[in-house]
Amino acid sequence: MLMKSATQSLTEQLAERYAERIRQRLLAPGARLPSVRECARVHGVSPSTVVAAYDLLLAQGLVHARKQRGFFVREPLAPRSDTHSRPPTPASPGPINASALIRGMFHRVSDKPQPGMGVFPPDWLETAFMPAAVRRMVGTRALNDASLHYGEPMGDSGLRRVLSQKLAGHSVHASPEQIITTVGATHALDIVSRTLLRPGDPVMVEEPGWAVEFARLAALGMRVLPVPRGPEGPDLDVMQRLAEAHRPKLYVSVSVLHNPTGYSLSPGSAHRLLQMAQRHGFHIVEDDTYSHLAPEHATRLSALDGLQRTIYVGGFAKILAPNWRIGFLAAPPALVEALLDTKLLSTLTTPALLEKALAHCIEHGQLRRHAERIRVRLDAARSRSAKLAMAAGCRFVAEPMGLFGWVDTGVDTDALAQRLLDDGHLIAPGALFHAARAPSTLMRINFATTQDAGFWRTYSRRVAQVT
Amino acid sequence: MLMKSATQSLTEQLAERYAERIRQRLLAPGARLPSVRECARVHGVSPSTVVAAYDLLLAQGLVHARKQRGFFVREPLAPRSDTHSRPPTPASPGPINASALIRGMFHRVSDKPQPGMGVFPPDWLETAFMPAAVRRMVGTRALNDASLHYGEPMGDSGLRRVLSQKLAGHSVHASPEQIITTVGATHALDIVSRTLLRPGDPVMVEEPGWAVEFARLAALGMRVLPVPRGPEGPDLDVMQRLAEAHRPKLYVSVSVLHNPTGYSLSPGSAHRLLQMAQRHGFHIVEDDTYSHLAPEHATRLSALDGLQRTIYVGGFAKILAPNWRIGFLAAPPALVEALLDTKLLSTLTTPALLEKALAHCIEHGQLRRHAERIRVRLDAARSRSAKLAMAAGCRFVAEPMGLFGWVDTGVDTDALAQRLLDDGHLIAPGALFHAARAPSTLMRINFATTQDAGFWRTYSRRVAQVT
Repeated sequence: MLMKSATQSLTEQLAERYAERIRQRLLAPGARLPSVRECARVHGVSPSTVVAAYDLLLAQGLVHARKQRGFFVREPLAPRSDTHSRPPTPASPGPINASALIRGMFHRVSDKPQPGMGVFPPDWLETAFMPAAVRRMVGTRALNDASLHYGEPMGDSGLRRVLSQKLAGHSVHASPEQIITTVGATHALDIVSRTLLRPGDPVMVEEPGWAVEFARLAALGMRVLPVPRGPEGPDLDVMQRLAEAHRPKLYVSVSVLHNPTGYSLSPGSAHRLLQMAQRHGFHIVEDDTYSHLAPEHATRLSALDGLQRTIYVGGFAKILAPNWRIGFLAAPPALVEALLDTKLLSTLTTPALLEKALAHCIEHGQLRRHAERIRVRLDAARSRSAKLAMAAGCRFVAEPMGLFGWVDTGVDTDALAQRLLDDGHLIAPGALFHAARAPSTLMRINFATTQDAGFWRTYSRRVAQVT
Repeated sequence: MLMKSATQSLTEQLAERYAERIRQRLLAPGARLPSVRECARVHGVSPSTVVAAYDLLLAQGLVHARKQRGFFVREPLAPRSDTHSRPPTPASPGPINASALIRGMFHRVSDKPQPGMGVFPPDWLETAFMPAAVRRMVGTRALNDASLHYGEPMGDSGLRRVLSQKLAGHSVHASPEQIITTVGATHALDIVSRTLLRPGDPVMVEEPGWAVEFARLAALGMRVLPVPRGPEGPDLDVMQRLAEAHRPKLYVSVSVLHNPTGYSLSPGSAHRLLQMAQRHGFHIVEDDTYSHLAPEHATRLSALDGLQRTIYVGGFAKILAPNWRIGFLAAPPALVEALLDTKLLSTLTTPALLEKALAHCIEHGQLRRHAERIRVRLDAARSRSAKLAMAAGCRFVAEPMGLFGWVDTGVDTDALAQRLLDDGHLIAPGALFHAARAPSTLMRINFATTQDAGFWRTYSRRVAQVT
């Protein structure tokens, strides 16, 4: 409900609220604003206030009106529109759509719980050992030496040694010379796609899957081929047909605690998938972002394969500090040089300070103990959140596991997302996890941020309105 | 001269020396090894030792032999060779060639001065204020908050505010909302080319110019169109013809203290260049990497243009700490959103710790005072180095300015580079600064690392051998 203020009229407040949402792309280009009557009811203002607010948005060029149909968010000015348009990428959203979700990861909609968030809330991640590790490193001769040069092209050798040992714990055997550090797992995935693919190349992805990956591949001009992801692994029949028809060079997979479903690859499915990769000559990039939350003996493709056709990608944003931006890849020896070249051309090196501090935290068992605590806390949160979700009428499409729940709400989640924004809650609608952004009744919930009964009450009220 | 050792025969030592050079790409694929007689003389061993060493390299698959012609470095295994080759990019080297130079930036050939180095020696950059700034930041609430989220998508807002003020000192007017931080200037240039260009697009670059930029554009599949760079600016006649024939979308330029020549754009040339950009509808990315070494009133395109068609790129690797990897871009408001999307898709955010520490150093005048000291020291080094270079028979193609000298040696500098490597000196041959890597008698010297008379004596001896 909007309240009169001394500095802004109700009209201005309402217009500003929608303008902000359009700028943050929480209302995507092409989306329809609520009807005047509906908007008036939701915000507790008169219809004439809504009409005036929509006129302000019109004047600002943020929306356009269509006769008898209402107001629609305008496409932003595209910097490349003056020449040719991008090559057609079937079933691929442009970066504009994905940015709604990406921005949602940063944008603080309100101080309320954010069920759509992709990471743990900051208070879960707060530790004393990380700042201490930075303090310990910053005075050292070794760090000073590293900082005043460009540093080691492959990344800090101490960290790569520690990571090599850590991977061995997952039965992934990679020497430090097969490991390259990156600016987070995102950068690692970017390096892999830029190195192994050329624009126009077909690449297989999981559906549902991670919108940022779809968007990056589309922005690089790749042809994105979605493969349905089931509880055991990818649909191998679909994959077989795609492999025969398009000869893709790469398959991108979150094999363990898949985002958004929480599925983990079964050993049998992993074996058959690797056989298919062998038969059709494609590589697999295994994104193990959720590794620290995974069951102890989860199957990794890279472990079975021995890093022959697989490239392993890991990171620490989901367990330590999203902003430290440390990720890494472990690759077959024959690919290391080409991947390193791509890293150097894109960022040169990566900062040694944080890499050395991270190596210290891993080496001294601090990360391991912290991850254990987080897993225990997450188990409790998941059980609480799942009960509340089911009581609110959600059906779990996948067994609750890991950080995310994948639930069927029974209503269009794009519409639901807009309603819940009015209450200060950001949710992640199912359309964001589909390469073609098909409307969906599914949504992804973060178990750590949906333990609050208050949210689920609001949720139920909004679901009833959307129905 | 090689010496017998207890663990390795002379043959093994000699083979290992060349193997290492091939692996580091200091000997590029296709390069011919010295003749047996020449190699024997240079290394002070018998011809039969050389023959045995070359046979070892042959057995290792690093070289191949051509009848009557000698031994040649083999092309490394290309990971993409199993499918189609990359689209032809006229006058563009692949990343393989550029990596020789890039790796030269990291690879410690010896403890001797490295005339080809692209940055200041570490002892020039050592300060107490940078570690102190990190220590000051690491305990703060603000940093903790930033680290446990992904952080601000555009980069630390404190740093962007400080950069905005700093740019105003160069008459470049950019609000903090036009500034995006990046993982060094390299990442900023990568973001610009990925955002404004599509694979196959023509893009104009300076020649001579920066090999990493050529290599990145080629790796992205762009058509690289070199424009000769003169003392006043680019050759506008050539640019006009290229603009008419190819309709390029972008021109990439180091306008102030151009690398490798040290040229700075004249105001008149800047004005005409901007008019041409306007007429032909292309953007200009102005790489101001050497800004901290520049004369006080140097002309920036972004200042004249008011960031309409220009995107300004800056960094701190050349003045503070190469490994901190902080760069930034300042862009026209209409391009900011698209550039930000590319940043997010490539690395998500950037680490706030170093950005906050850098902001502190700039705000408290520490960077400014440090840069003043470096400029004074560089002026003395330049004058000493230039005298020694001329005494050794070098002719300066461009008036000595900034960090680099661009000199004519009178001999093929690719061959000279191989000889000087035997003495432990890495030089930067002219071929690396040409898009087509044409052989050249020019080389780039770093004034900070060529003040040593001993190097120039070695240089003269080697020049005499190459002639």
